[in-house]
Amino acid sequence: MNTITKESLLDCHALIKRHTHKTPVLTSGLLDQYSGAELYFKCENFQRAGSFKMRGALHAIGKLDHAQQQRGVVTHSSGNFAQALSLAARSLGVTAHIVMPENAPHVKVEAVKGYGGKVYICRPTLEARAEKAKELEDRYGATFIHPSNNMDVIMGQGTAAMELLDEFPDLQIVMAPVGGGGLIAGTALAAHFFCKDCRTIGGEPLAMDDAYRSMQEGKIEHNQSGTTIADGLRTELGDINFPIIMSYVDSIVRVEEKEIVAAMKLIWERMKILVEPSSAVPFAAVLREPKTFKGKKIGIILSGGNVDLAKLPF
Amino acid sequence: MNTITKESLLDCHALIKRHTHKTPVLTSGLLDQYSGAELYFKCENFQRAGSFKMRGALHAIGKLDHAQQQRGVVTHSSGNFAQALSLAARSLGVTAHIVMPENAPHVKVEAVKGYGGKVYICRPTLEARAEKAKELEDRYGATFIHPSNNMDVIMGQGTAAMELLDEFPDLQIVMAPVGGGGLIAGTALAAHFFCKDCRTIGGEPLAMDDAYRSMQEGKIEHNQSGTTIADGLRTELGDINFPIIMSYVDSIVRVEEKEIVAAMKLIWERMKILVEPSSAVPFAAVLREPKTFKGKKIGIILSGGNVDLAKLPF
Repeated sequence: MNTITKESLLDCHALIKRHTHKTPVLTSGLLDQYSGAELYFKCENFQRAGSFKMRGALHAIGKLDHAQQQRGVVTHSSGNFAQALSLAARSLGVTAHIVMPENAPHVKVEAVKGYGGKVYICRPTLEARAEKAKELEDRYGATFIHPSNNMDVIMGQGTAAMELLDEFPDLQIVMAPVGGGGLIAGTALAAHFFCKDCRTIGGEPLAMDDAYRSMQEGKIEHNQSGTTIADGLRTELGDINFPIIMSYVDSIVRVEEKEIVAAMKLIWERMKILVEPSSAVPFAAVLREPKTFKGKKIGIILSGGNVDLAKLPF
Repeated sequence: MNTITKESLLDCHALIKRHTHKTPVLTSGLLDQYSGAELYFKCENFQRAGSFKMRGALHAIGKLDHAQQQRGVVTHSSGNFAQALSLAARSLGVTAHIVMPENAPHVKVEAVKGYGGKVYICRPTLEARAEKAKELEDRYGATFIHPSNNMDVIMGQGTAAMELLDEFPDLQIVMAPVGGGGLIAGTALAAHFFCKDCRTIGGEPLAMDDAYRSMQEGKIEHNQSGTTIADGLRTELGDINFPIIMSYVDSIVRVEEKEIVAAMKLIWERMKILVEPSSAVPFAAVLREPKTFKGKKIGIILSGGNVDLAKLPF
């Protein structure tokens, strides 16, 4: 964390800029009226590969030296990071080895292949995934890239908030969903280095509130049971992003499942854009706690738009 | 039609500009790849009240003299025009009387009320609707505004293509869905007056292909039976827009219901935006007739985004 500076974040943005979209920032008079706040939505659902994960993946691969890039990268993921790493790798002429569990949805496996990733199917346990990834590291000399607990990934994810704050420098609060911790940590770094008085607040499902409890306890807590519709957030913090979160995130607001669905529906119906459930969590938090958010000028990172249209919650 | 000039269209745009969004034009590398064409989507799904209808409604009300505006406007509609006329009227300080059939979806009635329209419920027949509208014209001296067969409405709808062609002057084809004929007629006028070599092509559901047949026969034809998922297109041409269509529309491509659904799904999944079925009809036409469209630079008016999330076709 000590190595992060304003300059290193600017370098990061310069590195990923060529291969990412500068996503638009949308506003909605109706949602402003509904929330009593002034909301600026940074649309990472329009990002390449459908989510902000493209940013971190590109930065992590881009920072490897030439010899490392020649040997490829490897990760295990059944979600957005698998697609993002595949497309980022292809954009940089690098091979991506993606370990996916045998119960991963067929469409996700196909999407990863479509972006050029080499897919390896394994049994659906964390051990099997880690073991297969290790085997690929050994076989190809490929570099393992963690979806959220990797400093280059964290910095990359922060570039979404950098662009948002560059366009709207007077935001009072910037918000992101909290899952593995990569996006919220990067967002908090961006707010810390590029904004004088902008607080970073996370949104997290109450049903999997490990990050909220971790901040309360000052150590990484785990989810014992429960699940959430916000499938991108069914993960836990790591030892690299947690100290950043402790230092720079102001607070985390927890929301109920039905609040996530209602917020998601409002975004779809009123803004006419597709966002995944995780993306709706910060807006749900704004609606849940008017005393914190009312009257404020707030930036919200809409994390992604990869949804299965056959399984909508409404 | 003889009164339409380049200047009158520019005046129209100047009149509506203040109360409409200049909607963005989106592109998609994936959909270009998929279609073999270069596509520019004009996103009227992001327009105020959720569709292009706002443009025509504003122009029709804006052209009334002060005394007429004082007495209000009236229409009968259960669709996008009811919402658009209500919001346009409110934006200009005018009263809108909206006749809606008793079987209109509750959410649509509420949306109209939310935009400030005065709703009058009647029996669900065309006669009952017309009769009630006539009664309101007589009672208030309100001006009846037809959703598509009104020259000021047609000109207003054309401003979407004007903005598109202003931004991308070298489009070879501009496309819009064909329902009541207001949008395609306005689009064709815009292409005729503001573009040297841009053809206008309509997309229409095969199941309700009155406009295609009307162009073939040189007279207004009707739909005998059948229906379409593209609910905004379940209407027929009128005597004011038909001559414009005959003069300036190059051709109409008909598409099957399953092609509309497939095209709509592609737009949702790949572009991450909500469009209503009608909006997907021109893109479905592009996919159906590659020999007409492949390799061409094509502008497509995405007409609107008012969908019922509880009744999606996928």
